[in-house]
Amino acid sequence: MELEAKIDWEQGLAFRAHLGGFSLPLGGEPKVEGEQSGFRPTELLLVGLAGCTGMDVISILGKMKVKVGKFHVAAAAQVAAEHPKKFLSIVVTYSFAGEGITPEPLRKAISLSEEKYCGVRASLLPGIAISHEIILNGEKIPG
Amino acid sequence: MELEAKIDWEQGLAFRAHLGGFSLPLGGEPKVEGEQSGFRPTELLLVGLAGCTGMDVISILGKMKVKVGKFHVAAAAQVAAEHPKKFLSIVVTYSFAGEGITPEPLRKAISLSEEKYCGVRASLLPGIAISHEIILNGEKIPG
Repeated sequence: MELEAKIDWEQGLAFRAHLGGFSLPLGGEPKVEGEQSGFRPTELLLVGLAGCTGMDVISILGKMKVKVGKFHVAAAAQVAAEHPKKFLSIVVTYSFAGEGITPEPLRKAISLSEEKYCGVRASLLPGIAISHEIILNGEKIPG
Repeated sequence: MELEAKIDWEQGLAFRAHLGGFSLPLGGEPKVEGEQSGFRPTELLLVGLAGCTGMDVISILGKMKVKVGKFHVAAAAQVAAEHPKKFLSIVVTYSFAGEGITPEPLRKAISLSEEKYCGVRASLLPGIAISHEIILNGEKIPG
């Protein structure tokens, strides 16, 4: 399968990506540029990871007939202080809200995404420690 | 250094990321969803890679006093056909336009990004074959 992305330089560290009718602004770190002109590239990698596993999980839960009311995925990373500022560890937090949701299918869906489906995760350096947390209706549940 | 991203589920495979005042839509593959509701997660990884190396290169060229008129970065990837659909290879194409630009500083800036600065690239699976091409004023030049 082929995949393409293209970005156009605007000024300073500001670029813009255009893809399939959608567009997004890219920018450097505020401390380098003075103000942030868009998403930082490393943030996009985190959004990509959260999106990839989020789509897997909601899709698997749909197949399991689990009704989810609200669903959020957060990814928090530690990045190296020195160049290249690569990812060291990432914690992915899955937050679900809805009535009648039990923990077991959530754990199963997350584990299937982690082990079998998530292409972004499978493309990352194996040395990056990726862990997860699960929140169900505001309460942290064992992963 | 800490980095965070959060996405909110909207419906189907559609999510939205909000970060530092910027927002972007995420969606699944059109063949799965019928229509594309936003950037695919794997596309965001490619945009992140292009943005990371693009910012490195334009910043290094600025320090070298190389005046660039236009600059685009494209990333084209081969992705595995089977789950997890991870990246197999990526070709990054750097296109520069402007008067009086010589190839040598372009090669130097790209090589510094590849070997020293690009945190997104350094966070990818080492098995992904990443190569580059350089276009200067519409002509491909030796990399």
